[in-house]
Amino acid sequence: MDQRFGLNAHVTLPGPLVLDSGAMLAPVEIAYETYGTLNADASNAILICHALTGDQHVASPHPRTGKPGWWARMVGAGLPIDPARHFIVCANVLGSCMGSSGPASTNPETGTPYGMAFPVITIRDMVRTQAMLLDHLGVKRLEAVVGGSMGGMQALSWAATYPARVAACVVIAATARHSAQNIAFHEVGRQAVMADPNWRDGDYYDADPPAAGLAVARMAAHITYLSEAGLTAKFGRKLQDRGAKTFGFDADFQVESYLRHQGLSFTDRFDANAYLYITRAMDYFDLAEEHGGMLAHAFRGTSTRFCVVSFDTDWLYPTRESRTIVQALNAAGAPASFVELSSPFGHDAFLLESPELRRIVDGFLRAGA
Amino acid sequence: MDQRFGLNAHVTLPGPLVLDSGAMLAPVEIAYETYGTLNADASNAILICHALTGDQHVASPHPRTGKPGWWARMVGAGLPIDPARHFIVCANVLGSCMGSSGPASTNPETGTPYGMAFPVITIRDMVRTQAMLLDHLGVKRLEAVVGGSMGGMQALSWAATYPARVAACVVIAATARHSAQNIAFHEVGRQAVMADPNWRDGDYYDADPPAAGLAVARMAAHITYLSEAGLTAKFGRKLQDRGAKTFGFDADFQVESYLRHQGLSFTDRFDANAYLYITRAMDYFDLAEEHGGMLAHAFRGTSTRFCVVSFDTDWLYPTRESRTIVQALNAAGAPASFVELSSPFGHDAFLLESPELRRIVDGFLRAGA
Repeated sequence: MDQRFGLNAHVTLPGPLVLDSGAMLAPVEIAYETYGTLNADASNAILICHALTGDQHVASPHPRTGKPGWWARMVGAGLPIDPARHFIVCANVLGSCMGSSGPASTNPETGTPYGMAFPVITIRDMVRTQAMLLDHLGVKRLEAVVGGSMGGMQALSWAATYPARVAACVVIAATARHSAQNIAFHEVGRQAVMADPNWRDGDYYDADPPAAGLAVARMAAHITYLSEAGLTAKFGRKLQDRGAKTFGFDADFQVESYLRHQGLSFTDRFDANAYLYITRAMDYFDLAEEHGGMLAHAFRGTSTRFCVVSFDTDWLYPTRESRTIVQALNAAGAPASFVELSSPFGHDAFLLESPELRRIVDGFLRAGA
Repeated sequence: MDQRFGLNAHVTLPGPLVLDSGAMLAPVEIAYETYGTLNADASNAILICHALTGDQHVASPHPRTGKPGWWARMVGAGLPIDPARHFIVCANVLGSCMGSSGPASTNPETGTPYGMAFPVITIRDMVRTQAMLLDHLGVKRLEAVVGGSMGGMQALSWAATYPARVAACVVIAATARHSAQNIAFHEVGRQAVMADPNWRDGDYYDADPPAAGLAVARMAAHITYLSEAGLTAKFGRKLQDRGAKTFGFDADFQVESYLRHQGLSFTDRFDANAYLYITRAMDYFDLAEEHGGMLAHAFRGTSTRFCVVSFDTDWLYPTRESRTIVQALNAAGAPASFVELSSPFGHDAFLLESPELRRIVDGFLRAGA
């Protein structure tokens, strides 16, 4: 096993997994990576939860793009999450398209891809799937569950759903519920996909995929991942190489060209139906609602330690959302630390170089060891 | 002439109009409305400039939707802009689709609609067209030019382009240049339109229009017109009437249903190509760039009085953009008043009920009379 790149693995669990919708899913496919070795008392496992368009390749090159793992700044030798000390698990979420069960998977009832016959899932269903994987791997209790953005929602859902299985929980640039504006942006993206005639009600796996619609969805979402100040600093009103307005509809401004590239390159690596399902799961996420409308009740009696981090320019999940989480944790008497970090990069800051974030996660994890 | 509803009018001017691109447009069609009567010395004219998807029906019912004029709260008997005192002119902007020359107009060279053969225009080109109209109407100098959002950009451009023709300039919820984020959102909308196979490179006037793409564009833009707090107050996570999640992809949340309605209803009243051209004009807008990179130079030696108004929850053209304008006016020695109004409604606040805005505009206009 090559520890530099993690161990690619895949497991088919018989299930059935009972979903929040009431539907049952069987079998349950889980694609995941592990780094490091589970110790004798199985106490050094860290589960990393990925974001909307993330994957299990947290610190290994992406198989299609060849790019470094999405959190190679956080996971690796000498880093806060270190294969030398931790048994690191990162699984592709339920509903996604990198090997775990999702709309592109084969429906055992028909022998063809599920498409829109795949059941609508929730963040908690993703967490349940991860719990099944940990059972399979012999991990009863996590040293920590760690995630940013949708990964942070999963981390919160882990702490609320399986409090006895989570010693520590790191929630970065996340929220305890999707706001009306969050839902609105996702709805634009879904409508963009569904407006593409190639979408064909999700039944496109033997034809051209709805790439144009998915690219538009990604472009809209991408704006929300960046700060206005960051966009201005990076692009401002700078024109493309030719240096003059064309008085046409080509990408005159660098920011246009950048966005178009973001949209197009995304369609090479992501399935449009998976985008629909995962955004739906995020929009459905409201941890308070699952606990009688009181977020603090989600954490009643917990012994989990929490670390909550926000970024000051994140307008997708602004600091006030993290404060809401921390207030609920305080109300529940849970040990919680909270830091707002300064960054020009908006929501995407959690994926970028941040010595402060590394120090915070490192210190928090070591404090529990 | 029915003063309640304004006088619908249309004029075909021979042109040619020389555009910023260098192209020439002839003839130039202008659809406009007037309210009130031009006084003997032609000194009581007020030009109102409309926003991206606005029109000349500033205080008269929209011919297609039947809805009241878009600024009936500001224009009318006993209101700040009053047909009893003012000769009010509002023209459909160049590039639009309500009767003025735009991509849906007939190209005299071919006898068919221009489509993408229509020249790319700028905010200043819109202003030049309005100046031609005022010449036609016998208005040498405006008592005031007034506009919100893109209308405010035109008002600024008026003051910079024809300083001798503008006694007073009211700029509401606007900006002196489109930011990278502004451009990015518009580019998403344009790509959504262009991704619709019905767009056919703009040549759709004898077929089905790209309604699905235009609806997505409108949905994305509409989010930017509202504040996060306003969306939360209005919709929050409230579900549709059936009161429960459907675990499907129908509009479960009220905010989804609202956005879908906004998108669809827009396609009944607006031309997709016009949306491309006008958003392009807005993205090209950078008043400083037109004056050697110094915004203050746009107003050097002006005798125009200025009134600048922003709204505290407007994140499309936030208050700092208005401050930039006011600082430039101050640097140019122009008389300028500036107010930031508080509103929960974001950018759209300038169109909504606001006694403060009415008082400010009324007081400012009367001070010059």
